[in-house]
Amino acid sequence: MLVLTQGDPASIAPEITAAVWQALRQNGPAFVYVGDPSLLERRVPVQTIRYLSDGADVFGHALPVLPLHLATPPAPGEPDRRNAASVLESIRLATELTLSGEASAMITNPISKEVVQGSGFRHPGHTSYLAELCQTPGDEVMLLAGPSLKVVPITVHVALRDAIAQLSTELIIRTARTVAAGLQRDFGLSHPRLAFAGLNPHAGEHGLMGQEEQEIILPAINTLRNEGLHVSGPLPPDTMFTPHARAQYDVALCMYHDQGLIPLKTLDMAEGVNVTLGLPIIRTSPDHGTAFDIAGQNKADPRSLAAAIRLAATLAANRRKNA
Amino acid sequence: MLVLTQGDPASIAPEITAAVWQALRQNGPAFVYVGDPSLLERRVPVQTIRYLSDGADVFGHALPVLPLHLATPPAPGEPDRRNAASVLESIRLATELTLSGEASAMITNPISKEVVQGSGFRHPGHTSYLAELCQTPGDEVMLLAGPSLKVVPITVHVALRDAIAQLSTELIIRTARTVAAGLQRDFGLSHPRLAFAGLNPHAGEHGLMGQEEQEIILPAINTLRNEGLHVSGPLPPDTMFTPHARAQYDVALCMYHDQGLIPLKTLDMAEGVNVTLGLPIIRTSPDHGTAFDIAGQNKADPRSLAAAIRLAATLAANRRKNA
Repeated sequence: MLVLTQGDPASIAPEITAAVWQALRQNGPAFVYVGDPSLLERRVPVQTIRYLSDGADVFGHALPVLPLHLATPPAPGEPDRRNAASVLESIRLATELTLSGEASAMITNPISKEVVQGSGFRHPGHTSYLAELCQTPGDEVMLLAGPSLKVVPITVHVALRDAIAQLSTELIIRTARTVAAGLQRDFGLSHPRLAFAGLNPHAGEHGLMGQEEQEIILPAINTLRNEGLHVSGPLPPDTMFTPHARAQYDVALCMYHDQGLIPLKTLDMAEGVNVTLGLPIIRTSPDHGTAFDIAGQNKADPRSLAAAIRLAATLAANRRKNA
Repeated sequence: MLVLTQGDPASIAPEITAAVWQALRQNGPAFVYVGDPSLLERRVPVQTIRYLSDGADVFGHALPVLPLHLATPPAPGEPDRRNAASVLESIRLATELTLSGEASAMITNPISKEVVQGSGFRHPGHTSYLAELCQTPGDEVMLLAGPSLKVVPITVHVALRDAIAQLSTELIIRTARTVAAGLQRDFGLSHPRLAFAGLNPHAGEHGLMGQEEQEIILPAINTLRNEGLHVSGPLPPDTMFTPHARAQYDVALCMYHDQGLIPLKTLDMAEGVNVTLGLPIIRTSPDHGTAFDIAGQNKADPRSLAAAIRLAATLAANRRKNA
């Protein structure tokens, strides 16, 4: 069984959760919601359950819920710190269920860092909180998967100049090993092909436009190749996302956030899924945020959450097969 | 009449020129080739002409050529500095014909900087050579136009860390004015909509991930807005190239090479056209290079050159209309 967290109760999370249950109720994959049932019961039939294992029988006719309780009724679009505890409790409980093996994978609805930081949350983001709950802090790697492309930004939410400064041969090697292991175990790719982007235009053109390719990226690629991994690059960033180029690799390892996110969202905006590699558990999430500006208006697009649930089910099935 | 330069004789330029004449001979637009006829006469019927104005009558049955003479017969894929003089002479003559008004626009085939630099060529690239021939050095701006998107990289062929260092409010303003004037005069857009990318992930998220949006980009946008231009941004780079986002602007002004070139080539690889704005003349070129590695093998894709010729004709017609 899959578990889906509540996310921020004032965000688009409740409405996309209801929409996704409607879309999946007939053919699955089934999931159990960990949150306050009042967020959903005006939208869809809801049934609270005691044990995760009860979810399968319920899912076809009602959304199964492991109930939590909000401190105060939320107003859509108006985040409220009084409800931060239930946001965190949902994540904690879903992680515990997945770590124990009762759930095969967890999917997280979007949260607001600002809301939970008021409640003693000390993490730069959702994912590093999960890594800590899993007792593997610092091992987490973000992979974004769309129908056309998979990318891993090696540096993430930092200013571009800081991303350049953070880049190191060691970071690239460590990230790539996690990615290769994740693709093998969970994506069913026995010999994943990893393509590395250059940092600079034309991948530096032999050092004419930047030295990072020679000094940082190439040594990492050589080390990984010597370990037996299927690697290529550093590739000129602007031509590596054409259909022809994409056919040559399974995942693009990108040197900074937008180098990977621009092509992913340009190609697969509505159906991108965020997958966290490097944790002992399987975790996916939609690749959008809380969208407080449109919450409660039934404008939110549920496709990314639906894709996240489907991908979590696929990854869990692959992991079972490989176990 | 349009003029097309020879480009490097050992590159893919001869074969794509022949292919494009075949594609355009019936319905145009007609063009005259400025180069050595021996490069083409094994491939297509060629007719040398004395005056540009003779080209129109010839074009339907043969490729009209204003003849130049190579120093030595080229071997495809093996650039030879002995032919650099004819490469430069073709560019010089085509520019002269376009500056004088005899030609309505020029299209340039790809050249190799390394080849011409042996012949006293002192420019960082093809385009700055043209700007000097036009006596407007430093005013040139590169716009890339595809069927789905137009982008202008505000910084171009420099290492990413240098691009960040080069970025200034003044450079953004100057570039944007050139872009707006070019879109008005040559692209038939009376009120062009300019969208500015942020530099950092999520456009800096209010300063959390970088200050350049607040300190450099926003002041430029405010100045341009006060001049009456239609401007928006700084936009989060990763979401500004989706179909919905693209519908809101005519051109994306990007802070570094790959921020603009990744989405352009991902969407429009085969049909991207390089347009130089800021010159007194109209100049387009394909958005690929010499491709020595496949020269002479009839593998080269002529679509970008064909698109460059068609766009040059369109821009020339718009400029006539606006004159």
